[in-house]
Amino acid sequence: MISFDEMRKLAQVTPSKIVLAVIDGVGGLPHHETGKTELETAHRPNLNRVASEGICGLAYSVSPGITPGSAPGHMSLFGYDPLTYGLGRGIVEALGLEVEVNPGDVVARGNFCTIDENGRILDRRAGRLATEKTHELCSLLNDRIDVAGVEIECFPGKEHRFVVRLRGEGLSEKVADTDPQHEGMEPLRARPLDESADMTASLINDAITQAGRLLADKHPANMLLLRGFSQHPDFPSLRDIFHLTPACIATYPMYRGVARVVGMDILSAGETLHDQVEVLSRNWDSYDYFFFHYKKTDARGEDGDFDAKVHAVEEFDEIVPSILALNPDVLIVTADHSTPAALAMHSWHPVPVALWARYCRRDEVKEFSEPACLRGGLGQIPAAELMPLAMANALKLNKYGA
Amino acid sequence: MISFDEMRKLAQVTPSKIVLAVIDGVGGLPHHETGKTELETAHRPNLNRVASEGICGLAYSVSPGITPGSAPGHMSLFGYDPLTYGLGRGIVEALGLEVEVNPGDVVARGNFCTIDENGRILDRRAGRLATEKTHELCSLLNDRIDVAGVEIECFPGKEHRFVVRLRGEGLSEKVADTDPQHEGMEPLRARPLDESADMTASLINDAITQAGRLLADKHPANMLLLRGFSQHPDFPSLRDIFHLTPACIATYPMYRGVARVVGMDILSAGETLHDQVEVLSRNWDSYDYFFFHYKKTDARGEDGDFDAKVHAVEEFDEIVPSILALNPDVLIVTADHSTPAALAMHSWHPVPVALWARYCRRDEVKEFSEPACLRGGLGQIPAAELMPLAMANALKLNKYGA
Repeated sequence: MISFDEMRKLAQVTPSKIVLAVIDGVGGLPHHETGKTELETAHRPNLNRVASEGICGLAYSVSPGITPGSAPGHMSLFGYDPLTYGLGRGIVEALGLEVEVNPGDVVARGNFCTIDENGRILDRRAGRLATEKTHELCSLLNDRIDVAGVEIECFPGKEHRFVVRLRGEGLSEKVADTDPQHEGMEPLRARPLDESADMTASLINDAITQAGRLLADKHPANMLLLRGFSQHPDFPSLRDIFHLTPACIATYPMYRGVARVVGMDILSAGETLHDQVEVLSRNWDSYDYFFFHYKKTDARGEDGDFDAKVHAVEEFDEIVPSILALNPDVLIVTADHSTPAALAMHSWHPVPVALWARYCRRDEVKEFSEPACLRGGLGQIPAAELMPLAMANALKLNKYGA
Repeated sequence: MISFDEMRKLAQVTPSKIVLAVIDGVGGLPHHETGKTELETAHRPNLNRVASEGICGLAYSVSPGITPGSAPGHMSLFGYDPLTYGLGRGIVEALGLEVEVNPGDVVARGNFCTIDENGRILDRRAGRLATEKTHELCSLLNDRIDVAGVEIECFPGKEHRFVVRLRGEGLSEKVADTDPQHEGMEPLRARPLDESADMTASLINDAITQAGRLLADKHPANMLLLRGFSQHPDFPSLRDIFHLTPACIATYPMYRGVARVVGMDILSAGETLHDQVEVLSRNWDSYDYFFFHYKKTDARGEDGDFDAKVHAVEEFDEIVPSILALNPDVLIVTADHSTPAALAMHSWHPVPVALWARYCRRDEVKEFSEPACLRGGLGQIPAAELMPLAMANALKLNKYGA
């Protein structure tokens, strides 16, 4: 694929508009009775119209066989190879909780856990601690932990999960996880991965020692585990690489967070799909690239609820005409990964793509589904190639070479 | 893809013959009334025979979404990744004008332009100066510019365009453009991109100062802009990599120039397609690789003239039997890029390929067109992979590994 340096030279600003509509987790697997996937089962005349008038294909985010998390799934759709532009676990969790992360801060994902009298981990999730309890323990730690020269704050998430943020001078993310990922072992000491992190690791160990004392009588949450120490990534933005003015319309914080990492403006998306369309319409003149994110398909897939996922597809299908009515120059409809109800989790299966544009060299695909898109003109491609294709179809790329 | 180093070990000299027939810009887009592309519309029984008896696919030169210029389009067909084997703007223009470029020379593309009394660019192309005027001004500059230790010569092209060649000791191409690519700015000073180019940049600035004085009263052509400083690339040749004895049969200088860069012998191609076939036939015994270039399809595509492009395809189709009559071992019919009449310019759409050879594992494609080739046995591939495939089908490659 072409490098960002080359792309910077080819990209030009034009009035044409690109919409990337992500139907999260929409790729699926056939129902064992009907032999049809969630998409094939759904009544989806408008998605079929987009596929029929556009060029279709299948896309994979990382590489064949690899199941992407939401962050790499989206980074690839934004044109970034997720193997090069990785986001640490800590930063992804922090984005999801809308924790403010400034340059220089270090964040990590935390678990409250249960240890036995010998300090060995009995349960890495402290029996999936109640969320209120996690709030309470985070407050306790925030009030009482005191480490010279650094501000430490815990932000509660769902159940046993939290984010810890270190703020101060000279911090480094090059610290190994304290979570050994196995029960029966002791939590690991925070170990510097290079010497730039000596001080950070020592501060963390100091804080964990204090936390261990404060939690000692809080069974089952009598210890904590940290993983994915990371800083805010300093990635080139969509403005910088593609000379786009991009906006994000997403109702979930984590997707807004990933969009922020690539420099999108974050619009207040409201709560419903109709709110989102309204926001798209209202901001149509101010941007030339819109990331429009729909969560429900993924959530119902994760639930393993085939019928509910079908219904979620149908809900999205209904708003497609409102997007087309805005006359985008390029509309891409796809997903960040598959979430087949049959697996009730993210999967490695490539996702269907329909790219709708005036000069797209239409193929013979007549419907938006996994088997139909397999026969599409795009073939099977890395999802990161969709961005250059969107740019080309919006006539935003100059010729390469003389 | 396999490296040139590996290829050198695998390639062997055999009597078998490869013909690469480039129908420049032949890839297209459907006509808005008929829904058929230029190729699909053309009566092309012979191209269809090649596709039907061969193995087909779609190829892209640079990467998906990227529109290639003619030079990268051809470099990829010759087996060179155009992102690695790039040709500077100056050298491509010089090749197009058949300017002699020796090792050590530096060439650049020049524009005559108009500046205002404050030295700001009013028109980067001096109102698309008449070609005769450009000839006249080049002569003036050639007679009068005098820079110690270097021979500077300007070669007129069409309208406001020319090529400047510096010949002397110790020259470097690492000089930034003086053309700011925007009107309203002053021409930039030639700036060395590294210290090897200090002297070259200073010579160029000296020459530009003299040119400015000579052109002062020549409004609208009262200044010049230079871009794409480049030297003759020192790329490995087709002889070196593939152990081929290659020849070029092209009626346009620029394609001959690119062929010369990869070490082809340049045959006098005459003026018409029939001349070209005659040259192919006459030289059949002296070479084992022929690059046969047909320009008209691209030219009519650039004109936006759908019907004329269809007719150009039909003209080419008529000479296909004469090529087949020579009994090539491998015939590849393809293009360097698409030039859809609908866009009237080069485009990013992958080009159809038919590879005809005795052992090619024929697919089910029955006609030479974009949609038919999409279903072909080659799939969608980088154009640079066609060269190893041609070599394989000519039984010119040894086995890799034991």
